[in-house]
Amino acid sequence: MNLRFADRMNNAQKSFIREILKVVGNPEIISFAGGLPNPISFPIKKIQEATDKILEEDGENILQYSTTEGYLPLREYISERYLKNSGVVVPPDEILITNGSQQGLDLIGKVFLNKGDCMLMEEPGYLGAIQAFSMFEPEFKTVLMNHDGVDTEKLKESIEKYNPKLFYAVPNFQNPSGITYSEENRKQIAGFMKGSDTILIEDDPYGELRFMGSRVPSMKKYMNDNVILLGSFSKIVSPGMRLGWIHAGHEIMEKLIIAKQGADLHSNYFSQRVVYEYLKENNIEVHIEKITDLYKKQRDCMVNSIEKYFPKEVQTTKPEGGMFIWVTLPEKYSSMDLFNIAIKKKVAFVPGDPFYTGKEGVNAFRLNYTNSTEDKIEEGIKILAEGIKELLSEKN
Amino acid sequence: MNLRFADRMNNAQKSFIREILKVVGNPEIISFAGGLPNPISFPIKKIQEATDKILEEDGENILQYSTTEGYLPLREYISERYLKNSGVVVPPDEILITNGSQQGLDLIGKVFLNKGDCMLMEEPGYLGAIQAFSMFEPEFKTVLMNHDGVDTEKLKESIEKYNPKLFYAVPNFQNPSGITYSEENRKQIAGFMKGSDTILIEDDPYGELRFMGSRVPSMKKYMNDNVILLGSFSKIVSPGMRLGWIHAGHEIMEKLIIAKQGADLHSNYFSQRVVYEYLKENNIEVHIEKITDLYKKQRDCMVNSIEKYFPKEVQTTKPEGGMFIWVTLPEKYSSMDLFNIAIKKKVAFVPGDPFYTGKEGVNAFRLNYTNSTEDKIEEGIKILAEGIKELLSEKN
Repeated sequence: MNLRFADRMNNAQKSFIREILKVVGNPEIISFAGGLPNPISFPIKKIQEATDKILEEDGENILQYSTTEGYLPLREYISERYLKNSGVVVPPDEILITNGSQQGLDLIGKVFLNKGDCMLMEEPGYLGAIQAFSMFEPEFKTVLMNHDGVDTEKLKESIEKYNPKLFYAVPNFQNPSGITYSEENRKQIAGFMKGSDTILIEDDPYGELRFMGSRVPSMKKYMNDNVILLGSFSKIVSPGMRLGWIHAGHEIMEKLIIAKQGADLHSNYFSQRVVYEYLKENNIEVHIEKITDLYKKQRDCMVNSIEKYFPKEVQTTKPEGGMFIWVTLPEKYSSMDLFNIAIKKKVAFVPGDPFYTGKEGVNAFRLNYTNSTEDKIEEGIKILAEGIKELLSEKN
Repeated sequence: MNLRFADRMNNAQKSFIREILKVVGNPEIISFAGGLPNPISFPIKKIQEATDKILEEDGENILQYSTTEGYLPLREYISERYLKNSGVVVPPDEILITNGSQQGLDLIGKVFLNKGDCMLMEEPGYLGAIQAFSMFEPEFKTVLMNHDGVDTEKLKESIEKYNPKLFYAVPNFQNPSGITYSEENRKQIAGFMKGSDTILIEDDPYGELRFMGSRVPSMKKYMNDNVILLGSFSKIVSPGMRLGWIHAGHEIMEKLIIAKQGADLHSNYFSQRVVYEYLKENNIEVHIEKITDLYKKQRDCMVNSIEKYFPKEVQTTKPEGGMFIWVTLPEKYSSMDLFNIAIKKKVAFVPGDPFYTGKEGVNAFRLNYTNSTEDKIEEGIKILAEGIKELLSEKN
């Protein structure tokens, strides 16, 4: 039969990262490719205690259908934590529990984007967001990342010129660059976005993973109305449970709930109850400290190894938290070429191309340091340095 | 600020059922409104055993990110069960694990529907499907349900006339009518759909819940290529875990996986592992028999109570399985008016309107018998009969 797919599928590609992850399943390969938390940080025993307790006490409810909005005590917990940690007021009825914050992107795209609508992305930007929004066929415009946030001049100009519906940003330890927007950068953005009709999507999966420097306030602090906030339990409890959330004002939330009902009725209720029980019975701040202590060591090891082994003409970011380092090769060298060299040496990373909405042969790439050991990190960076030297000499 | 929603949200309504479910949270109300399994059927203890075992043995993997396609042994289990129970060949790599079969509808809509594309729905039809597909702004055409399936003459005519991309059907114990397509009906449909470019979406959440009569083969038996199959663990294990699946041929599956990646990366892996462990260690057929024994009693009680109390001019279906009975009032009486009478008497059901793509004041409504007790069923039907008599006398 003649298969008639929707237009939106014409250019849709499988996620490059997920395809890479299949290749690097081989345990001989040192992989800096994924964006996976270190599984030694998972609170397995505590999750088991939480699960046992709630199944014993309330099994019939836990396995039943539930509300689209999500488990109220869990939304209240998220609300209280925003207030305590960021001084941001987020009422529980303006929170929707999603299947990871990735689903938030899909729902926001569905609620806002007509085919051809303009939306702004960071460049480089999170490839999962590019993939999610692409399904609604917007016209992407991009704003370059600087060392202290996004290029505000270009952002202002783009908002005035294109009047985009959405601007998608990861202000804390950005994926893929590891860059955090400075307070000054945030204030500037808020200053000119406030009066506009452009909504800022503030995606914050990594904000909790700060291991140096001090917390910078949420964009929501500066520009209340125009912000949709996304959060996630993936990096602080467990990604396998696919639990994240969207915060948006009442009018937007109503539409998001309708979209969520149609998409899958509600998020996994069993996991919502398990995670809530875990959070209620344990001090998550102590657990997060354990994770950041671990990641800081791994980050330091990678930064130091890079300084030790990489050629001087290669530039890298030095993140204060999160999971990624962004490496920039001298101009005209393709990170895809480097990937092909490195994978033969059994080291993997994600080339820059998929983090761009329409660019090939990008001279930068992403390294992840969280799902590894210090030994592997030093060894892998050393091998990668050899690969870089090969690449640079080849082309000269 | 000026909120600029996508066109698709203009006519989107919150699910009427979910709104009703909020009203009927009141324990004084006898509710035949939801489509909820009876929680006394949930295998709570066995789920707890399964969870304990896998967290102890493989906690680090179970809480980690996983593949978009879903846990392979679970897909293999589904594949083997199709072969054993229906003689249908469904390779594991043509199965995608979804967040309940509801998500399957969203993904199929995304992969196939451009705005304005024609698709066929049963009338009355599953309101969650109407809601999911509406997001992609198709032009709905409908085909009436008869007592033995869909009106094949009208279906044939509609396929020839409109060349629809999709036809959505629930051939076993349809929601909302409880009707099952006869073998003859299926053969006829397959006969003229085979040569067409219309894909049949065979949604089968209730197929396992047969308590009388004999199993009718899947539509896939008769028309391999043109069929996408949807299945679910919601009615046989737990709906709270939101686990269903899509089966589609290779070419379609590739697109569905891309859509799933963008939508939420993958389904809850923790729950996939729990459910697989449960299925591996227990005989699901024995468990299903317990459920159907329970539901048969509840169904018989409702059918008998209806015969005893309802006025003779009211017609009802007599399902051989599933969860619903469809009640038709004499013409010109609105089930919405009856709802308003009945809710004052503290009995709830779902009026017919939301099961139609564009019809109001429908003279039929849906009753659910699975999430109740025999006492409540008899009492509720007796009260509802009084309401019906009031309605019929009011209008005369």
